[in-house]
Amino acid sequence: MKKIINDLDNIIIEELKGMEKAYNNIIKVCYEPIFIIRKELSKKVAIVSGGGSGHEPLHGGFVGYGMLDAACPGPVFTSPTPDQMEASVKSVNKDMGVLLLIKNYTGDVMNFQMAEEICKSEGINVKSVIIEDDVAVKDSLYTTGRRGVGATVFFEKICGASAERGDNLDKVIEYANYCKENARSMGMALTSCTVPAAGKPTFNISDDEIEMGIGIHGEPGIERIKIKKANEIAEIMMEKICNDIPYKNGDEVICMVNGMGGTPLMELYILYNCVEEIAKNKGIKIVRNLVGNYVTSIDMAGASISLMKTNNDILKLWDYPVNTAALRWGM
Amino acid sequence: MKKIINDLDNIIIEELKGMEKAYNNIIKVCYEPIFIIRKELSKKVAIVSGGGSGHEPLHGGFVGYGMLDAACPGPVFTSPTPDQMEASVKSVNKDMGVLLLIKNYTGDVMNFQMAEEICKSEGINVKSVIIEDDVAVKDSLYTTGRRGVGATVFFEKICGASAERGDNLDKVIEYANYCKENARSMGMALTSCTVPAAGKPTFNISDDEIEMGIGIHGEPGIERIKIKKANEIAEIMMEKICNDIPYKNGDEVICMVNGMGGTPLMELYILYNCVEEIAKNKGIKIVRNLVGNYVTSIDMAGASISLMKTNNDILKLWDYPVNTAALRWGM
Repeated sequence: MKKIINDLDNIIIEELKGMEKAYNNIIKVCYEPIFIIRKELSKKVAIVSGGGSGHEPLHGGFVGYGMLDAACPGPVFTSPTPDQMEASVKSVNKDMGVLLLIKNYTGDVMNFQMAEEICKSEGINVKSVIIEDDVAVKDSLYTTGRRGVGATVFFEKICGASAERGDNLDKVIEYANYCKENARSMGMALTSCTVPAAGKPTFNISDDEIEMGIGIHGEPGIERIKIKKANEIAEIMMEKICNDIPYKNGDEVICMVNGMGGTPLMELYILYNCVEEIAKNKGIKIVRNLVGNYVTSIDMAGASISLMKTNNDILKLWDYPVNTAALRWGM
Repeated sequence: MKKIINDLDNIIIEELKGMEKAYNNIIKVCYEPIFIIRKELSKKVAIVSGGGSGHEPLHGGFVGYGMLDAACPGPVFTSPTPDQMEASVKSVNKDMGVLLLIKNYTGDVMNFQMAEEICKSEGINVKSVIIEDDVAVKDSLYTTGRRGVGATVFFEKICGASAERGDNLDKVIEYANYCKENARSMGMALTSCTVPAAGKPTFNISDDEIEMGIGIHGEPGIERIKIKKANEIAEIMMEKICNDIPYKNGDEVICMVNGMGGTPLMELYILYNCVEEIAKNKGIKIVRNLVGNYVTSIDMAGASISLMKTNNDILKLWDYPVNTAALRWGM
């Protein structure tokens, strides 16, 4: 394993220190317990998310105006602890309610819900919504039910904008549920990631094979197949995504073509070109897009596709100004 | 080789189609000859750059308000041709002058200068500035003199903002020369990149070695050494960069910690943390930064550091609104 690191035991702390220095106009990092918080909070519904590290820029890269108020990073691919979540909720709570956005992994759900109970028992109005957008598999290594993957970015952007413009907690939750109903994702991998502490690839895959339906921790997908062309890969993923939601001719979507960390933009643009063609042939119009590394799996080569049906109300929230490390527009 | 592609002969065209679809509010692509151009041009000094593909988001990702007016992408790691440059200059020319920003590679310089001569002979006021910021080596596989690498982003941002706010060609060139005098870079690689047409890594490197001073085409650097810790890697690069420019205590800089395509954000943040510490110990204050993939070498794992001395005038240009695929702020 070759990585640009110092001390295996200190990777997350050093990463957060670097991030805090790079974005000291947007975020602050609390180190005991660990969470990333907006530099300036305002009186509004607060949004908190988090999960294992290794998916950067998720979640810390989405803390800032118009998205998250705080994010709790765990160790690599390991859930953060309830005390991190509890402390972050208490730090961002402005008595307008707090929404926890939880990717569906057993550890994350358990720990976030424990923190939710503690905060509730102390009179804080906290609610949570679980993200489960991965159409690839039902029940997997880390998860009961569907995994929460790429669409997390949609949840955080839409709910973040809703809270920022002053919507109340019920309204923000309504948007989270909208995302839950309307967003779907699927991923694939060309190579494994290498977890620093493990020091070797999580799985072996031969030079002519790809893994379809991979999870963001390198957990197995649907099947391992011979490498295919970009348009065939896009076709398989788009079929699975589009069969899960009934699309009508003329539906408009937000589309994310996401890199897993080790795949260059060149390939992501080629994949996006295929995805757009397939969508068009299905009568689906992509009206907003993200193409880049947003929900990664450390250094894995691979990509995921996320689609979310949209409408004028949702588009307004998508276009709402945002100022975070990883998404920035309108300001 | 495993990549998300369709047809080896059509990689650049498909990539550009994807890019054009993803950013159709910012850019248009001309396919014969190939160049990327702003969707909307205004009457001002025009800035054109270009070079081999494989360094994305450079240069096409920097076409848009506040940066480039056009970019000419060549095949992977191969110079674009004079006819691409000539056509792009003629398309962006608004009779206020055109500046060509050329990374110092023999093919790029020769072809851009040929286009410059042709355009001049037709009465267009074109000038060019050569970027040669790499402190690692003098003369290398593709270059006589120093290579043009990461600081290209500084040139394109500063000159682009200067042109956008209405400065004349002489003033824009003055800023390009400022960047030339004040910006330096150095890179390192953990792995080789794989050029699609070659189908295998450009060079072999063992599991415990890194290449210091690597070029952005995988061309050899200063030396191959045993893998070191992030802070030792940062120390070597910062020494070489800072010894090349006399820094005074209290100098302020813009710093870019750039990923080569296959290195995750986690490692770039750790590296940035080291770089900031080293700078601070030298009395150098980083007042603006970029941490991410900006000037890549396809899928290479590795990173580069670029520093540019700054002042209030330069910072105004850095902070000037920009709206491109890869940099976006202030609008």
